[in-house]
Parts: sequence; structure tokens; C-alpha cells
Amino acid sequence: MNDRKQILVDMDGVLADVYKQFQLFEKQETGKERKPEEVTGLPEYEAFPNSYKYVNIKGFFRNAPVIEGSIEGLNYLNNKYNVLVVSSATEFPNSLKEKLEWLNEHYPFITWKQLILCGTKDSIKGDIMIDDHLKNLDCFEGEKMLFTQPHNMLINSPLYKRIYNWNEIIEKL
Amino acid sequence: MNDRKQILVDMDGVLADVYKQFQLFEKQETGKERKPEEVTGLPEYEAFPNSYKYVNIKGFFRNAPVIEGSIEGLNYLNNKYNVLVVSSATEFPNSLKEKLEWLNEHYPFITWKQLILCGTKDSIKGDIMIDDHLKNLDCFEGEKMLFTQPHNMLINSPLYKRIYNWNEIIEKL
Repeated sequence: MNDRKQILVDMDGVLADVYKQFQLFEKQETGKERKPEEVTGLPEYEAFPNSYKYVNIKGFFRNAPVIEGSIEGLNYLNNKYNVLVVSSATEFPNSLKEKLEWLNEHYPFITWKQLILCGTKDSIKGDIMIDDHLKNLDCFEGEKMLFTQPHNMLINSPLYKRIYNWNEIIEKL
Repeated sequence: MNDRKQILVDMDGVLADVYKQFQLFEKQETGKERKPEEVTGLPEYEAFPNSYKYVNIKGFFRNAPVIEGSIEGLNYLNNKYNVLVVSSATEFPNSLKEKLEWLNEHYPFITWKQLILCGTKDSIKGDIMIDDHLKNLDCFEGEKMLFTQPHNMLINSPLYKRIYNWNEIIEKL
């Protein structure tokens, strides 16, 4: 171990643009495209009622687009902190390999030693957590950074430092 | 969270009998069967020079035999402690789903919320760790229980509480 602070970086909604995937899969199924403002503040399962089906479809995670600025941003963090990419994944057996391959493709500077695929994140040590879900941040004892996604846009609490995009992460960290 | 102590239980060498798999795969490849006493004290990659190849073969983890007494033993622990099954797995992309399915088949009382697939175990919180590898126990701050496997049989150190089998785990915990 070294003296660097440890940052836990979430995958879905922070690195991987799962909202775009939900939109795409829903459009393919129903022909309708939902706009971000239509789903503001809604939990994912309400915003996209078939989301649970979509995440179990082969390719959902493997083909997710990367969130803008996340490659440069994560590389920046990786040079300055101990970065762990921590993803809730064990609920979805098919997601595991897809997530690993996706990470290797887009963020090759992150090694397999830096990836944790788990069920819940409450047993992972770190100093800073970047996540879009309160359920993960609320179990974390360090600094909590809430990465903006439509489902969390209406949250306004001093418990979390809101982060709108990866440029802001680089500025603040 | 509750007041229960948290136990981190290793998969390979504590739940899954990877030595028997190494023996089997080597016998299939070379026709020779190595006895446990021939590999006592040798690291796995010396005991089974092709081990790295074997663990990447489809089915290696999915078809591993369970270690004797581990089903009753893990069930016992699960009723008394917060159990997390923690497995070094992200080095081997094909192992991820196999390990999850294997765990579901043999230990159905362990849920997906209790599984962590990682690269290294030094960032997982717990009070007790049961593992057969010193590299994992040495990074752990809680109580270190060394589960006997041929590769660690010659280790004799007060840093670790040696455990010979699952009956002993039930007696001591």
C-alpha cells in the first residue's frame, strides 16, 4: 500500500452510460424514445419499466457507450489516487464478463487488480466514493460524491457532493 | 448492518477443491497423477506447471468438487455471522460466471449480495478471514485463519490460526 487516497469509482452511471442503453433497448422494443426530462427524478425501474429485462440481455453492458470525459477523467484519477472500479454485478450473471471486457477495452490503464464485482458495496474500503446511487453512498464512510444521472437529479442534500460531469471531477480532485 | 461479526470466506482452496481439479486436468493432459505429498509446500504454479492454462479452460471452476464439510460449515457460519464469499477472479474472465453459478448450485443459501469477485482482497472489510493464501491474509487486519492446502502446509507462524478442515471451523467459530 502507498499513501495515496483510495477512490471507489462506480461503473454504471459513472463510466458506462446505461441510460443511453435503456433508451436504445426501449426504442428497439417499443419504437418510443424517452427524453431525459421525462424520467427526471424517477428510479430506473420506473423510468424504464423493462429495465430488469434489458440488463439481462446479452450485450447490454458490453456495448454500453462510455460517459463523456470518463476515459480522460479516470486516467487522471488513476495517476493520482488508488483507483478501484467497484460495480454491483453479481445479481446479473451475464454482466460479469461483459463488464470486465468493456472496462479492458475502454480503460486499458485499469488492471484486473483494480476491479471489484460485488453485490453490495458496503464492505469496500475507500476514502472517496463516486457513485450515482444513494444506496451505495449511504453505506460509505468516506467522502460521498453523487454523480448526476436523471434518477438522482432531484436529490439535494448536504450529505453528498454533487458532480455534474467528469470535467468537474478533474477540477475538484 | 447488524452486530454480527463479518467473515470473509475464500472460494478456491476453502470451498472449491481446486487441487483436485489441477490433479484431474494434469492427469488428462499427461497421464500422470500427482499425489498430495509430492506437492507439499510447493506454490501452485510449481506443483502444477500448467495450472495457469488449466484455470483458463472452460469448466475448470464450474466443475470443481466442493471441499468436504464446506456446505454444512458455510451454512453454519451463515446463520451466525455476516458471511461474504470473496474470490480473486477478475484475472480470469471466464471464471466469473462459473464461480457464481457454482456457488449458487452448491451453497444456495448464499445470495448474490454475499459474493465479491475481485482482483486483490486488501480493500474488503471484515473481522475474520478464512483463506489458504498468505498474500490475502497478510493484507487483512482482522483474525487470520489459514485453511490447510498442500501449498501452505509447511507454514508455521503465530500470525495465522491454522485450520485443517471445516469441522474445525465449526468447533472454533
